[in-house]
Amino acid sequence: MELWFTEHHNDSIGYSLKVNRTLNSENTQYQKLDVIESEFYGRVLILDGILQTTEKDEFVYHEMIVHVPLFTHKNPKSVLIVGGGDGGAVKEILKHDSVERVVLAEIDDRVVENSKKYLPTISCGLYDEKVEIMIGDGIKYVSEHKNEFDVVIVDSTDPIGPAVGLFTEDFYRSVYECLKEDGIIVAQTESPFIYGSLINKLSKMFKNIYPIVKPYICTIPTYPGHLWTFTMGSKKYDPEAVDVNNIPNIDTKYYTPQLHKASFVLPKFVKEIFEEA
Amino acid sequence: MELWFTEHHNDSIGYSLKVNRTLNSENTQYQKLDVIESEFYGRVLILDGILQTTEKDEFVYHEMIVHVPLFTHKNPKSVLIVGGGDGGAVKEILKHDSVERVVLAEIDDRVVENSKKYLPTISCGLYDEKVEIMIGDGIKYVSEHKNEFDVVIVDSTDPIGPAVGLFTEDFYRSVYECLKEDGIIVAQTESPFIYGSLINKLSKMFKNIYPIVKPYICTIPTYPGHLWTFTMGSKKYDPEAVDVNNIPNIDTKYYTPQLHKASFVLPKFVKEIFEEA
Repeated sequence: MELWFTEHHNDSIGYSLKVNRTLNSENTQYQKLDVIESEFYGRVLILDGILQTTEKDEFVYHEMIVHVPLFTHKNPKSVLIVGGGDGGAVKEILKHDSVERVVLAEIDDRVVENSKKYLPTISCGLYDEKVEIMIGDGIKYVSEHKNEFDVVIVDSTDPIGPAVGLFTEDFYRSVYECLKEDGIIVAQTESPFIYGSLINKLSKMFKNIYPIVKPYICTIPTYPGHLWTFTMGSKKYDPEAVDVNNIPNIDTKYYTPQLHKASFVLPKFVKEIFEEA
Repeated sequence: MELWFTEHHNDSIGYSLKVNRTLNSENTQYQKLDVIESEFYGRVLILDGILQTTEKDEFVYHEMIVHVPLFTHKNPKSVLIVGGGDGGAVKEILKHDSVERVVLAEIDDRVVENSKKYLPTISCGLYDEKVEIMIGDGIKYVSEHKNEFDVVIVDSTDPIGPAVGLFTEDFYRSVYECLKEDGIIVAQTESPFIYGSLINKLSKMFKNIYPIVKPYICTIPTYPGHLWTFTMGSKKYDPEAVDVNNIPNIDTKYYTPQLHKASFVLPKFVKEIFEEA
């Protein structure tokens, strides 16, 4: 017997991974959580039936959501992650020597605990003494902390279920207050092949709040649409003005200083989605 | 009843499209050919069970395999396509005013005929008076034509079945002779997430023959691995030295002059695959 995990998009596309075994399945307070061992992509975290991260390709998403904003900021010391309970973003943030404090605001402690247990290569940074794990509502946490973070990373699930509130103008405005005067927000903003209208809507919200708004892209084999966008809102620093010669060498598999700049060069139809916002 | 087309990669990944109806299925002299109407990606051409092109995302592949080499060459007049019977590359080549002659060397006339009948938005250029459709062995055609083309585009299927001979050093050397003294070859060279070792091997072959060898990338939602590579071999022109301000404005959905340059900036692990060659 062969077992396959299949995720459907728009009820018309399926993405399937052959499963060697299921490591855990549980209903948490917030969502259905599964951890599987897939044949090609290694271990996979699945929330409400949607693939969140895999051992084999997590580096693309986590490197790009972290290193682009952190190397855009001149001296990031304090970083807040909203979501990201798997620890992948934390792992990448800890590669930056300037960082003194990382707060992970994850609503579901079972995501953190399952990642610690089943995804050690992704969650390894969660034990670092610079890291504070705050189990609770990220929206509430942001609203209660003003002028405190250099970078806020919104490492959310899709805009359904527990993450809906992370795709609103109220939240992005609250993050603005939570950031220091030269702070930067980055949010994962889905694929233009699947979610074009959402990207347009989010881009409008960012432009209403942040003086510098720039989307950037990467390719994630296990995410729907595969061409993935992040949207950066910045109070002061322009991510494209970074001197790539001054970016220190860190251990990566996807990010390079040259790719930092190239990732802001969008395919024409994606550029139009953002410019129309 | 729901019908789904599923393509498998490495026996461990599945990519599925919901099918509204099958438009044609036949066994040609060379391969099994199917045309389906999918719900999300429109009409789809399938050869030996492998998705070749879809109405909705063909623009990514065809624009990138054509406009990057044609805008690297200063004045492309004659272009040979090996494979590409769907006509998508022809359609893009005809957007270049300098081009006087396009030869399509396609081994399977049924690919051409089915594309004309079922994929009119992709095959529309095949009727143009500049286009010669040569049904036959592209390898033989290349070997019989010396110093004749400005650009040769290898728009092949995967390196199994009829296309195996298009992934060999002998063939790339024969193309070198077929090109004029400032000629350029571009070949589709698969995804580094799936076919890393093949990319490394092909890169070595190119470097043995062409003075300038540069890979570039794009994101194709319906191709396995999704991060797609093309490899360019050039006798004279450096694709990264192109003055993007001199590239004329043409009607595209993916390619832009800025993306032309950015597409040569590779993720670190892809760069390493090529540099190790």
